[in-house]
Amino acid sequence: MDRRTVRIGLLGLGTIGSSVYRLIEKEHDQILEGTGVDLQVARVLEVDANKIPADAPSGLFTRDFSDIVDDPTIDVVVEVIGGTTAAFDFLDAAMRNGKDVVTANKQLIASRGEALFTLARDQKRHLRFEASVAGAIPIIKVMRESMIAAGLHTVYGIVNGTTNYILTRMFQEEGDYVEILLKAQELGYAEADPTADVGGADAAAKMAILASIAFHSRVTLNDVAFTGIQNVTLADVRYAKELGFAVKLIGAARLVDDRVSVRVFPALLPMSHPLAAISGSNNAVFLQGDAIGEIMLMGPGAGGVPTSTAVVSDIVSIANTKDVGFLQSCSCYRSLSFYPADEMESAFFIKVNVADEAGVLAQISSIFGEHGVSIASMLQKGRGDEAELVIITHPTKEKHFFAAIAEAKGLSCCKRDPMTLRVL
Amino acid sequence: MDRRTVRIGLLGLGTIGSSVYRLIEKEHDQILEGTGVDLQVARVLEVDANKIPADAPSGLFTRDFSDIVDDPTIDVVVEVIGGTTAAFDFLDAAMRNGKDVVTANKQLIASRGEALFTLARDQKRHLRFEASVAGAIPIIKVMRESMIAAGLHTVYGIVNGTTNYILTRMFQEEGDYVEILLKAQELGYAEADPTADVGGADAAAKMAILASIAFHSRVTLNDVAFTGIQNVTLADVRYAKELGFAVKLIGAARLVDDRVSVRVFPALLPMSHPLAAISGSNNAVFLQGDAIGEIMLMGPGAGGVPTSTAVVSDIVSIANTKDVGFLQSCSCYRSLSFYPADEMESAFFIKVNVADEAGVLAQISSIFGEHGVSIASMLQKGRGDEAELVIITHPTKEKHFFAAIAEAKGLSCCKRDPMTLRVL
Repeated sequence: MDRRTVRIGLLGLGTIGSSVYRLIEKEHDQILEGTGVDLQVARVLEVDANKIPADAPSGLFTRDFSDIVDDPTIDVVVEVIGGTTAAFDFLDAAMRNGKDVVTANKQLIASRGEALFTLARDQKRHLRFEASVAGAIPIIKVMRESMIAAGLHTVYGIVNGTTNYILTRMFQEEGDYVEILLKAQELGYAEADPTADVGGADAAAKMAILASIAFHSRVTLNDVAFTGIQNVTLADVRYAKELGFAVKLIGAARLVDDRVSVRVFPALLPMSHPLAAISGSNNAVFLQGDAIGEIMLMGPGAGGVPTSTAVVSDIVSIANTKDVGFLQSCSCYRSLSFYPADEMESAFFIKVNVADEAGVLAQISSIFGEHGVSIASMLQKGRGDEAELVIITHPTKEKHFFAAIAEAKGLSCCKRDPMTLRVL
Repeated sequence: MDRRTVRIGLLGLGTIGSSVYRLIEKEHDQILEGTGVDLQVARVLEVDANKIPADAPSGLFTRDFSDIVDDPTIDVVVEVIGGTTAAFDFLDAAMRNGKDVVTANKQLIASRGEALFTLARDQKRHLRFEASVAGAIPIIKVMRESMIAAGLHTVYGIVNGTTNYILTRMFQEEGDYVEILLKAQELGYAEADPTADVGGADAAAKMAILASIAFHSRVTLNDVAFTGIQNVTLADVRYAKELGFAVKLIGAARLVDDRVSVRVFPALLPMSHPLAAISGSNNAVFLQGDAIGEIMLMGPGAGGVPTSTAVVSDIVSIANTKDVGFLQSCSCYRSLSFYPADEMESAFFIKVNVADEAGVLAQISSIFGEHGVSIASMLQKGRGDEAELVIITHPTKEKHFFAAIAEAKGLSCCKRDPMTLRVL
């Protein structure tokens, strides 16, 4: 087997960066034997001296990006610093200087991917981003390289580990959202500022990337309608459980009449649904296509060590496809329009605080009936001020459902705005 | 994007071959747009005139392999005829004539893989075999290309669709093995001669292939200890269900103290195990490794159309890695020894027809105790001639377990040889 040395410039020594550094150290000989690729971390950019390991060779670390980008012996630049400004500039400069690049940065790819892919094509450089979605699960490679003839029309699943950890604990231990979030932060499963995770933006960026690959049409973060789990209460999770459902944050990308719909929302799933069993910080993605039926990939969606395996396999993949192939190009060769969100069909869970008096259900169900929304099941809970109505509908056009909810809000018997969640 | 034409010689127009032909026809333009690869089926070898579609261009079909192997314009030969003799000779001749090859033939790769990989390396040709294991699930690509730094030590799962279909129906409908097998044959889920599937040889070949890749050491069909599902009765499945278990045909490959163990056996799985939910002809494979924890891939394990997506992605992968890389080499760069089967640890299910008299359990449990086999749960069923003891043990070295069973067989109270199944 031909041997080739790949000299790596590593940008950032945070959770993923330090794991990449250690993994290459640990697996260097096996990778060389198995693939003929001799991985060498040539230089590491890290400004925080505390992150530099005591046993690292002197001269390996730099605070100056030009030590990497201007070093002609460096073949591949690996970006694991995050953010969309400096990270973009670094990857841009690296490709212009003839280097292939690997990134784990979902926000960057989802928001500024097109410019990076165009540059990669023009400069004939590789741009790989397996680690940007679903940690150790090789979902990007599978979609780009194995689903070529699958006729993909749907990609959906759980792509955020933090929210899945929180929802799993709310479900299993019936703990409160805020308490569990604090615990998750303590354990390092949630960041100090958890907004991107719990608000759905992290999952939305990942779904934008997956949809762009699946449907060959550019989807950016701005094209994804997303709702997070901040408003999901323990009471909602308990009612769901009582009705036979788990609550999960779902990313769903669909091709409908040659138009694209990409959304992220908390949803109820029947307990028999395979995604209901995905617990803790695991991720799971279903791929559906004309020729494959349905394939599912499941595994650790986060964590430095699992994610670093994706970075390393990207580097080896680049070393193994030296000449120009389709993996150097953006997968978006067409431009599809977006499907209007309110034309999508969904079933819904509704929880509404109502007056504890006769005729309430009749009033509400009559409004639903007028809008063509059919009720699948219903629970009446609590008495007096605590009286609540919990309803699950059959699938219906979302615009009809939301029109019914808007009208129901106006009823004097509805004491607060109803809480609604989709049902998968 | 550079465009390249790939002219294909297709060997065989059976279930997979005809699906490959149709899929290339259907997805040609999308594949060209997405990957720059212009797939052309140049020639098809098929001796059965009945299989040739009415709308096929004249001159496409031949009964003479030399029309393909001697045609210098053909780049890739796709073998989907099955068997290990002619198929081997065809692939051998194709590679010697400068053609890359793709095969869906698990028996060929598992039994004569080493010779084919050596030839591929010497001739600098590609040999791809994604379709040989788990149909549309890209398990080979994921293991070879994405699990490079994963430190894989365990691969296990359900890799035979026919037996999973039969066991699922036995479990769900409590139908009899023979009746369901007949039904499966009627529906085309089982072959006229189902021996390779129900006897475990098919799963064993697939596990040999997966283990060779995972552990980088050659495992052939002869190295795999396999048992099929022929002796699993409806009564066994019912008892398992009563105790909270499903019955599945499991393939399990493990690295134990740097030695390899690869086995196929019917096993009881707790209903909470994700594999217990894999139904019908689906396959599912778990990969476990130091750096990844656990990843699972699930999908259709058989069927012409899903399997043909794997063949097509192999052809495109070859077109995209024209120069020599590690994917042209066999993944086995070391030679590990095998772990003795009787040193492995397993829990067991035992069903034994016993005399309906006092003291039977004491006699049997005393023998188990002497051999260090500890009992986890026990059921006494039936009366008189139908009296049976159903036992589940804690994990124990298999040699101790089988020594206990051998001794128990000699007891006058054991009226027939005990039925034993492993518990996962």
